[in-house]
Amino acid sequence: MQRYFVKENITDQEFFLPPEIFHHAIDVMRDKVGDRFEIIGPDRQVQVVKLLSIDHSHAKGQIIQTIVHDPELPVQTTIVCGISKGDKTEKIVQKGTELGANRFIFYNSERSVAQWNDKKATKKLVRLKKISQGAAEQSHRTVIPEVLFCQNITAVFKETWQADHQVVAYEESAKQGETSQLARILQVVRKESKKQQNGETLALSAFFGPEGGFSPKEIKFFKQQNVSAVGLGPRIMRAETAPLYLLAALSFVLELE
Amino acid sequence: MQRYFVKENITDQEFFLPPEIFHHAIDVMRDKVGDRFEIIGPDRQVQVVKLLSIDHSHAKGQIIQTIVHDPELPVQTTIVCGISKGDKTEKIVQKGTELGANRFIFYNSERSVAQWNDKKATKKLVRLKKISQGAAEQSHRTVIPEVLFCQNITAVFKETWQADHQVVAYEESAKQGETSQLARILQVVRKESKKQQNGETLALSAFFGPEGGFSPKEIKFFKQQNVSAVGLGPRIMRAETAPLYLLAALSFVLELE
Repeated sequence: MQRYFVKENITDQEFFLPPEIFHHAIDVMRDKVGDRFEIIGPDRQVQVVKLLSIDHSHAKGQIIQTIVHDPELPVQTTIVCGISKGDKTEKIVQKGTELGANRFIFYNSERSVAQWNDKKATKKLVRLKKISQGAAEQSHRTVIPEVLFCQNITAVFKETWQADHQVVAYEESAKQGETSQLARILQVVRKESKKQQNGETLALSAFFGPEGGFSPKEIKFFKQQNVSAVGLGPRIMRAETAPLYLLAALSFVLELE
Repeated sequence: MQRYFVKENITDQEFFLPPEIFHHAIDVMRDKVGDRFEIIGPDRQVQVVKLLSIDHSHAKGQIIQTIVHDPELPVQTTIVCGISKGDKTEKIVQKGTELGANRFIFYNSERSVAQWNDKKATKKLVRLKKISQGAAEQSHRTVIPEVLFCQNITAVFKETWQADHQVVAYEESAKQGETSQLARILQVVRKESKKQQNGETLALSAFFGPEGGFSPKEIKFFKQQNVSAVGLGPRIMRAETAPLYLLAALSFVLELE
C-alpha cells in the first residue's frame, strides 16, 4: 500500500486530503473512490485511509484503521563504532537499521586499521545514508536512521553525552566472565521506558571498537564519562556482529519480554 | 596459547601427556619446562597446563587452571533456513557460528529463488563448513557447528524432529502484533536448561524462510509438527538477519539474564 508522510497529525475520522497528498494520490497515482493508502504523521501512527469522494480540487478521505503496530524501538538508540575494514560499516548500517537503531556514528578509533579523512568520510556517508534509507523502507520503519562521522572519540562524546544510558561493549568483560551488567542495564532501560510520557524519549548510546579493540586512551575516556562496560556473552564476536547482538537483545527485552 | 583437543578428560592434577600431545608439544612446538598450553576434553572444559618435566619419551604436565568460562550455548541450537540468494547462506553460517549455533540446515524451500541441486549443494557445503570452522576458531568456540543440506522441508524434519523445542519465525506473526511467544518459549528453555544434569543436552530447532517466505504447504507442515510460530519484533527483517536475532535473544536469556 502506498504510504505518505503528512506534516500534521490527522485527528478527524473524515478529512480533506492535504494538497501534497491530493496531488500525488489523485494526479499521480490516479486513485479512485474506494482506493486505500496509508498516512503517517509526526506522531508516527500509521493510519489506513479510504477515499470517500473526489472533485477537481478536493478529495475526502476516511480513516478506516489505525495501525497500533509501532515498528520503532521505544528507546532512541545510537550505535557508535570505530571504523572497520571493508564493507563492515555498510553491514552495520544495513542490519542495525533492520534491528531498530536510530543513529550511527563512525569514528577514527586509535586502533582502526582503516581511517577516514574528510573526503573519504563525505563519500562514505552518502553511501551509508542510502543504505540506511533502503533498509528503513524494507524493514517498514517510520524513521530513517541518521549516519554521522566523527574524527575521534572526543568528538563522538559531544554528540552522545546527553544520552540517559551509555554502554561500551568491552571484549575483556566477556573474557573475565562478566555476564550480567547488560541484563541489569536493559532492565533499568525497560522500567524507565515504560514510565515515559508522550513526547519524552529515552536515549541509549552503545560504543563498539574496531577489529583491534580500544586504545588505553579511549578506555580511560569511557571511564571518565561513566560509560558502563558490558559483556555480550562468552563468545568473541567480530566488530560488525557485536552491535547486532546488542540491538537484538534490546529489542527482545523492550518489545518481546 | 596453543589449544589441544584430547580424547579423554584429564582428571588428575599431574599427568603424563597423551602421545598425540607429547609429539606436537615437545617435537613440533618445542615446548620447554614451564611452558603452557590449553587442553579441551570431551567435557569441553578448557584447562591450562604447565609442563613440569620432559624426558625423551614422556612429559609431565600440571593443570594450573580450569577455565570455567564455557563459550557454548547451554542449548544445542539448529538453525534451519530456506536457501537464499547470493552470499546469504555464508553470512548465516559465519555470524550464526559467532552467536553460538550448533548446526545449520539449508533446504530447498518451495519459494527459494535459488535452488541447489546435489552437485551445487556438495560444493556449497564444502565452502560453508570451512566458514563454520573459521568462525568457530575466531570466536573461541569449543565445537565446530555442522552444516547440512536437505532437499525439502520433509527431509529437514527427519533431522530435527527429536528437538525438545521447535520454533518457526513467521513474518505474519510480527505483522499481527504477536510479541510474546518467543519470550515465553525462551523462558521455558531457560528453566529446562538449568535443570539439565551433566551429559544431558536440551535441543532447539529454529526455522526461517527464504526471502519469499514459506509456502502454504510448508506452513501446514509446521502446524502438523507442532512447531511454534514466533514473532521477532515489529520490524521486517531480511532472511539472513532473522536467525541472528533469534540466536542473540537466546544467548541473552540463557547466558546474560
